[in-house]
Amino acid sequence: KQTGRLLIKCPDQPGIVSSVTQFLHKNEANIIESNQYTTDPQDGKFFMRIEFESSKLPEAEEELRNDFGSIADTFDMEWSLKGAYDVKKTAIFVSKELHCLRELLLEWQSGDLIADIKMVVSNHEDCKELVESFGLPFFHIPSNKDIRKQVEEKQLKLLKDYDIDLIVLARYMQILTPDFVAAHPFKIINIHHSFLPAFIGANPHKRAYDRGVKLIGATSHYVTNDLDEGPIIEQDIVRVDHRDSVNDLKKMGRSVERIVLARGVKWDLEDRLIVHENKTIVF
Amino acid sequence: KQTGRLLIKCPDQPGIVSSVTQFLHKNEANIIESNQYTTDPQDGKFFMRIEFESSKLPEAEEELRNDFGSIADTFDMEWSLKGAYDVKKTAIFVSKELHCLRELLLEWQSGDLIADIKMVVSNHEDCKELVESFGLPFFHIPSNKDIRKQVEEKQLKLLKDYDIDLIVLARYMQILTPDFVAAHPFKIINIHHSFLPAFIGANPHKRAYDRGVKLIGATSHYVTNDLDEGPIIEQDIVRVDHRDSVNDLKKMGRSVERIVLARGVKWDLEDRLIVHENKTIVF
Amino acid sequence: KQTGRLLIKCPDQPGIVSSVTQFLHKNEANIIESNQYTTDPQDGKFFMRIEFESSKLPEAEEELRNDFGSIADTFDMEWSLKGAYDVKKTAIFVSKELHCLRELLLEWQSGDLIADIKMVVSNHEDCKELVESFGLPFFHIPSNKDIRKQVEEKQLKLLKDYDIDLIVLARYMQILTPDFVAAHPFKIINIHHSFLPAFIGANPHKRAYDRGVKLIGATSHYVTNDLDEGPIIEQDIVRVDHRDSVNDLKKMGRSVERIVLARGVKWDLEDRLIVHENKTIVF
Amino acid sequence: KQTGRLLIKCPDQPGIVSSVTQFLHKNEANIIESNQYTTDPQDGKFFMRIEFESSKLPEAEEELRNDFGSIADTFDMEWSLKGAYDVKKTAIFVSKELHCLRELLLEWQSGDLIADIKMVVSNHEDCKELVESFGLPFFHIPSNKDIRKQVEEKQLKLLKDYDIDLIVLARYMQILTPDFVAAHPFKIINIHHSFLPAFIGANPHKRAYDRGVKLIGATSHYVTNDLDEGPIIEQDIVRVDHRDSVNDLKKMGRSVERIVLARGVKWDLEDRLIVHENKTIVF
Repeated sequence: KQTGRLLIKCPDQPGIVSSVTQFLHKNEANIIESNQYTTDPQDGKFFMRIEFESSKLPEAEEELRNDFGSIADTFDMEWSLKGAYDVKKTAIFVSKELHCLRELLLEWQSGDLIADIKMVVSNHEDCKELVESFGLPFFHIPSNKDIRKQVEEKQLKLLKDYDIDLIVLARYMQILTPDFVAAHPFKIINIHHSFLPAFIGANPHKRAYDRGVKLIGATSHYVTNDLDEGPIIEQDIVRVDHRDSVNDLKKMGRSVERIVLARGVKWDLEDRLIVHENKTIVF
Repeated sequence: KQTGRLLIKCPDQPGIVSSVTQFLHKNEANIIESNQYTTDPQDGKFFMRIEFESSKLPEAEEELRNDFGSIADTFDMEWSLKGAYDVKKTAIFVSKELHCLRELLLEWQSGDLIADIKMVVSNHEDCKELVESFGLPFFHIPSNKDIRKQVEEKQLKLLKDYDIDLIVLARYMQILTPDFVAAHPFKIINIHHSFLPAFIGANPHKRAYDRGVKLIGATSHYVTNDLDEGPIIEQDIVRVDHRDSVNDLKKMGRSVERIVLARGVKWDLEDRLIVHENKTIVF
Repeated sequence: KQTGRLLIKCPDQPGIVSSVTQFLHKNEANIIESNQYTTDPQDGKFFMRIEFESSKLPEAEEELRNDFGSIADTFDMEWSLKGAYDVKKTAIFVSKELHCLRELLLEWQSGDLIADIKMVVSNHEDCKELVESFGLPFFHIPSNKDIRKQVEEKQLKLLKDYDIDLIVLARYMQILTPDFVAAHPFKIINIHHSFLPAFIGANPHKRAYDRGVKLIGATSHYVTNDLDEGPIIEQDIVRVDHRDSVNDLKKMGRSVERIVLARGVKWDLEDRLIVHENKTIVF
Repeated sequence: KQTGRLLIKCPDQPGIVSSVTQFLHKNEANIIESNQYTTDPQDGKFFMRIEFESSKLPEAEEELRNDFGSIADTFDMEWSLKGAYDVKKTAIFVSKELHCLRELLLEWQSGDLIADIKMVVSNHEDCKELVESFGLPFFHIPSNKDIRKQVEEKQLKLLKDYDIDLIVLARYMQILTPDFVAAHPFKIINIHHSFLPAFIGANPHKRAYDRGVKLIGATSHYVTNDLDEGPIIEQDIVRVDHRDSVNDLKKMGRSVERIVLARGVKWDLEDRLIVHENKTIVF
């Protein structure tokens, strides 16, 4: 397809939308979807996402980017202009719990999640067969905290070899080193099995049970070096009651975890997410 | 405040957004919120709502409208440009069930529903005291199907005297005549106590009970002369189960009815609704 | 495990619960879960489900049933007493849309759906590989309305050979003959891709789109010979808006369909459903 | 009506249900609703709530209680047997935010909340007119942290004079002293404007905004002397997004707060709540 996506972040001031839409108009682009948000029309921060079709794409993609440069300079923009045809090269990391992986694979197979899945990486072999039945490469990299450095070296090599754009932690229960995280700013999405900021850290279902909550949740977020403190992408909840054991909470949590992760990953793949001050703008 | 709202509906073609935003820019307007939708970038219908602040408002409102006329002509637009300070003059019609009326009055009193409520009209006197305790005029117009014409004449006179912009049927159980409806195109909002198009017509809760549904709903919609067939504004549901009697469904339905109606009314009051082919665009 | 499930349906009268619980007590049964419902304490219909553990199970299952007979006679009960260890032999019928099948297989594989899946039957071959990758038998029975009789003969033979307890229509787009349905009373569960009774019949998403609804739904129900009119087991909805095309509704509908079907199937497998006057009691 | 409610908490062991239902049967009681829960059939804790009709009520209420004593002793029960006709004498405490108070008053007026509201107490006079328009006594007791003791003395005298059963803190922004709380074990219900345990303490909406959550919530709970740590009764959430300011969160929070509080209060009024290890069983 000839679809492009323009993402913009800049200080708000009059004239931005007018300049951007004139530029697109001049370049024979039809706007399909347009979203904008300003923290404050006076001296706030302005954000915009435009999805458009242009007969100039994909051939003149580079040229469009060059032309847009002067507008971007005028308004002091951070921006990107990409073709929707450049599907993100994606790696999925997983441990022993496979429900999130399964959801991603099925959504991908049915065409509802447009990713170029290059690999599934796990510290266990439980999902090998599943992954290969989808015709995808599986890499088994056993790990423990004593060999974290060597493990990450192997992982980083793989990520580099395949030129990965997005890493999805689909219940990957290992802590990543600060260096690993720093090397992939806002390119790692994790699913946490609680309604953050409630129950940060380990065993959220056990703690939810002990506290006697009436709802449990899940949170997909970008990974930063503050544990479970990165920008939240999506959250949802499921109702529980006094009869539910810790094990029931785990089971019930699974269906909300997989949906919350899949939704967050889709939004990233469609370039709908802009990070600002540890929050996400979801367009 | 100096806030204006521009609503547009026209055939889609390149250049619309660019022209509109240039116009606003020229008129020192800061865009606060902007939404657009196109049924199809090729030969579809284009819809837009822009909320903006301009130091020229409210003084130069008429002038802005005049200036915009030439753009509107170029693109063959149906459009409106209004100040948010022109709060809609609203009439509420009600019968004996008061939960929807109560919700509207409380939301209005707490400043969450910005309407200029000019009157509450009822064919019963049950709510007289309630309405007057809010300092609002109450009109009792008894009615039955034999005197429908005379009743509506009284109502129409009131609506005209107070120059009413919006009529809310807050569980007003009388049928309006085709003439009455035709005189207020997309200016009458009704709440139907079912998830339309399920259970069109009378006694939806009884019929929901008989069918054994597991969810019941409510629908706010603009009134047209096809019973319960007007453009749907908002819907929501509440979970029920086998233990719930018809009476329980009525009780449980109340909380979803009042919320669905209040939401729909707010959106109309904020000029967020555009009707197109018997559907609503909700911006 | 030594878990049993007792289901009861009888005219309400004093003393039922007392007799039943005495019986269980006498038989060293610990009640794990107990649910009851009466349409009316005076002359209504009484329903009960008890899940219990007893050291006498599974050995004395037949004996327990014999003993219970006299209580059942006293109160004129329709009843069943089964071991939870008798997992239902299940057949899944599917056509070309595979999301519901996938959900059931994954839930089954992860141990969240306790069925003894004996076969997947389809009029197409699209899911052959998927089914066989789960180690399950796949039967391809091409069909069209001219050969319906022959098709059903083959299906009936399979169902009989494997002694099937439950048939799940996981988006099986063929109409079953009255004879086929009559042979499996309340043993066939279908998923309909609308919020019944809205949009009975074909193309519910197209019709939902045309009507401009703000929510779409799905309904799992037992199949009777009135199209889409059988007892509703479970329903749920998902929010849509004006931007969603018919195709978007189909996509969004998939996630609610698969969940609503899986939930309904689980409840049947756990003997939580009692049908009464074309409705379900869900315990 | 002749409805009674029996609540039971005791060590689980075989024979409890059997004994209780025999007792009711002997006393000509029809069971309307029955719920039970055991933490573990082996040596767990057992909970039960039975709602029944008996022609012996209300006259023989005391006699029924005496008779039940021996069963209660046998099984070492904590228990209560009350008539539904003994409507709880209720006090509502409120400060300046009135949405929760309004909800309770409207639900009470429409007969959906069966309480005997004896008073509304506030440290401000904002709601005086509203309360009195419902024909209810209003008490203005100004307060600040320096005169907390005197304030509570006045409050305690009122509560005693009116023999209050239930105190509802409907956004009452004052801290209660340990003595006050200790004097009303599980008789004070508070609404906290967050999804506990997230955002314990002050300004939860500001902190939710800063964290960038995608859902905000509300929690009704019994008050204990650990701030916001008492047994949770009910929780619910509402979806928010990046466009919502702190003020928007407050507005949106209101509708979920009032519903979560009203639901919790209703359950208490209907004796549906049993506290166990800082959690609630909701029957």
